[in-house]
Amino acid sequence: MNIIVQKYGGTSVGNIPKIKSVADRILKAKSSGAAMVVVVSAMGHTTDRLVNLARAITRKPSRREMDMLLSTGEQISIALLSLAIQERGAKAISLTGLQSGIVTDANYSMAKIKSVKTDSIVSQLEKDHVVIVAGFQGVSNGFEITTLGRGGSDTTASALAVALQARCCEIYTDVEGVYTTDPNLVPEAKKLHYISYEEMVELAGAGAQVLHPRSVEIAMKFGVPIAVRPSYSDAPGTVVMEAAKLENVVITGVTGNKNIAKVAIRGIPDRPGVAAQIFSALGSQGINIRLIIQSIAADGLNDISLVVSREFVKQAAEVLEGQRRSLKAKEIVCHDKLAEVSIVGSGIASTPGVAARMFKILAKQKINIDLISSSEVRITCVIDEKRTPEAIRALHQEFRLEKLQRGLARK
Amino acid sequence: MNIIVQKYGGTSVGNIPKIKSVADRILKAKSSGAAMVVVVSAMGHTTDRLVNLARAITRKPSRREMDMLLSTGEQISIALLSLAIQERGAKAISLTGLQSGIVTDANYSMAKIKSVKTDSIVSQLEKDHVVIVAGFQGVSNGFEITTLGRGGSDTTASALAVALQARCCEIYTDVEGVYTTDPNLVPEAKKLHYISYEEMVELAGAGAQVLHPRSVEIAMKFGVPIAVRPSYSDAPGTVVMEAAKLENVVITGVTGNKNIAKVAIRGIPDRPGVAAQIFSALGSQGINIRLIIQSIAADGLNDISLVVSREFVKQAAEVLEGQRRSLKAKEIVCHDKLAEVSIVGSGIASTPGVAARMFKILAKQKINIDLISSSEVRITCVIDEKRTPEAIRALHQEFRLEKLQRGLARK
Repeated sequence: MNIIVQKYGGTSVGNIPKIKSVADRILKAKSSGAAMVVVVSAMGHTTDRLVNLARAITRKPSRREMDMLLSTGEQISIALLSLAIQERGAKAISLTGLQSGIVTDANYSMAKIKSVKTDSIVSQLEKDHVVIVAGFQGVSNGFEITTLGRGGSDTTASALAVALQARCCEIYTDVEGVYTTDPNLVPEAKKLHYISYEEMVELAGAGAQVLHPRSVEIAMKFGVPIAVRPSYSDAPGTVVMEAAKLENVVITGVTGNKNIAKVAIRGIPDRPGVAAQIFSALGSQGINIRLIIQSIAADGLNDISLVVSREFVKQAAEVLEGQRRSLKAKEIVCHDKLAEVSIVGSGIASTPGVAARMFKILAKQKINIDLISSSEVRITCVIDEKRTPEAIRALHQEFRLEKLQRGLARK
Repeated sequence: MNIIVQKYGGTSVGNIPKIKSVADRILKAKSSGAAMVVVVSAMGHTTDRLVNLARAITRKPSRREMDMLLSTGEQISIALLSLAIQERGAKAISLTGLQSGIVTDANYSMAKIKSVKTDSIVSQLEKDHVVIVAGFQGVSNGFEITTLGRGGSDTTASALAVALQARCCEIYTDVEGVYTTDPNLVPEAKKLHYISYEEMVELAGAGAQVLHPRSVEIAMKFGVPIAVRPSYSDAPGTVVMEAAKLENVVITGVTGNKNIAKVAIRGIPDRPGVAAQIFSALGSQGINIRLIIQSIAADGLNDISLVVSREFVKQAAEVLEGQRRSLKAKEIVCHDKLAEVSIVGSGIASTPGVAARMFKILAKQKINIDLISSSEVRITCVIDEKRTPEAIRALHQEFRLEKLQRGLARK
């Protein structure tokens, strides 16, 4: 079957006129002969509204009940979109996570998709239905409702595209595509026609809000291209695909992430296994560690610094405080006014001197670098939160990203 | 197990403070040692709001998608109530219709409960959880979401009470209990301590809004008592139970139903099978007929009059118009400014002259009776809609219902 998976975010289905125009867009794509599977998020601020209701009841809501609550948001939008398509004379059916066979683990509120049982979707496609699937949700242990956490609808879409062997996964958003950096911050930022999966994972992980990294990883594993497109026009957007099929460029983007904090445990007596003990304690609490730096102080005692998302800082500090006592370490220090600035590009590893150039640019702006980390396609500096915009502008300009041209690789 | 099933309607869980006070009430009942199963409706006007969203998209929404949409209302309230109970330190779990094993037929938007698989609820009760069940919804054909139609949460509650062999089914509402008539209309109306299942079915069917007749029928079949109680106090309300255990009274209530209309097909050539043909055509459209009168006119032609709920009048007229042509009948006449006034009581059948007394009281008020129907425990007159309040007041007064005393039968 010639299947296209489309995903529409909360702003794209934020009100009834928008839902109707999404219905038109879907039927236009269907008229080209494709079988359509459409993943939808909750309308506009529905999720926030539901979260506020729960907060008015309890400060520590059980994650199972939150998933029961929040999954209704997507269930409303799939029903409405299905009605809008039916109103246009086409056949449509809405399916919840459970009904569409999206099986997850039992980790409520941040569940991972384990498998997709496609029978039900395929049988509806065979009956010529547009299949509207609730994003962000799945089912575990038979009938338990789970949600996938932030960006979950993107993940639903790419998991479905992979499981259904779709031709393409189209993610509709309220921007033109993926840019070299945030155009609100740098007006010269350039829209990319193509980007590799690896670059996209790093850009998303480093703060670009366009696509959730997990959704890109899933598509990457099976080579399904993802098109990030605007929901308000027919512009082609940005295609995320295999690096091998793209022209090589050193740097494709600069991005900042203000949502981070550092927690350090200082003065740890040097004993083997200490780091492992700390990390397993953090891991068992579901705290995601972005970066770890271990250093030896002059007095032979160790310091360990962790960079985490700000939402985890309190929890991480509590866990470390427990560890501090059992390790007889000196103190816990938190610092939450930090930010990450990253450059991302497939040519970083193969181009000597890129890191040095980055540090030099920041030094020229008199921006102190607190910590550094890097991957094959990314270099990240942790800096003072207040300096983020300047740092991004300077990096974007010095690497001349406003002139970036990248096409498909020549064979 | 000593199980109590409680049901809270939409106004009882209309906002967060009300949800919290429902949680208190549940835990108070639980502290007496009962295993608690609680059925909840959607909060306040949630259902109306969802219906309006659908109406903004289409005038003829598919019933399947409406059930997908509307079932979210109860899913929100069960999650919130469960959180409120957990916040008070007790264990609670919310279950959708599917999760609680409420299996229905596939008649979307007016599904009937076929069976209740209680395993899941029982296993949660054994773990000392308060089990919060979404009212009004069930599942058909595996995973399809269905809703039970108006008053569906009452039906969920009594079906669960029967399936779980509960000690009692408590229906919490915003009134003191069941009255001899609407106290807004007749201030002297008296609250009943007891009423029989049969009387309650007839009162509910004849317009009293307290309980849905189907929920009473289910409880009646298995002899589970239903207590209709106010959600704002500890008053005992009204207990609905077996007639044999109650003192006999001639009349327990008077009620009016303005929501009706008459559709007549006139001048039908007298042929056997004509009525059957008409009724099967109406039945196939899901039109509920309250009353049928067939009469032979002077010219040997038949008239058939149907009394239906007003919502069905247009649909019924369309069906009859189709029949009129094939039967070569003369005309279709609609009249939608009608109302039913009924008297209900277990002693009606055994007390001669009750019907005559009713007609005489109406005649004294110069109220014309258009049609009459009756059952073992009810007499209904169809009258001009405008005259309904007068008719109810006169009947309530003449039958001296303000003085009604009814207790349990002496053994």
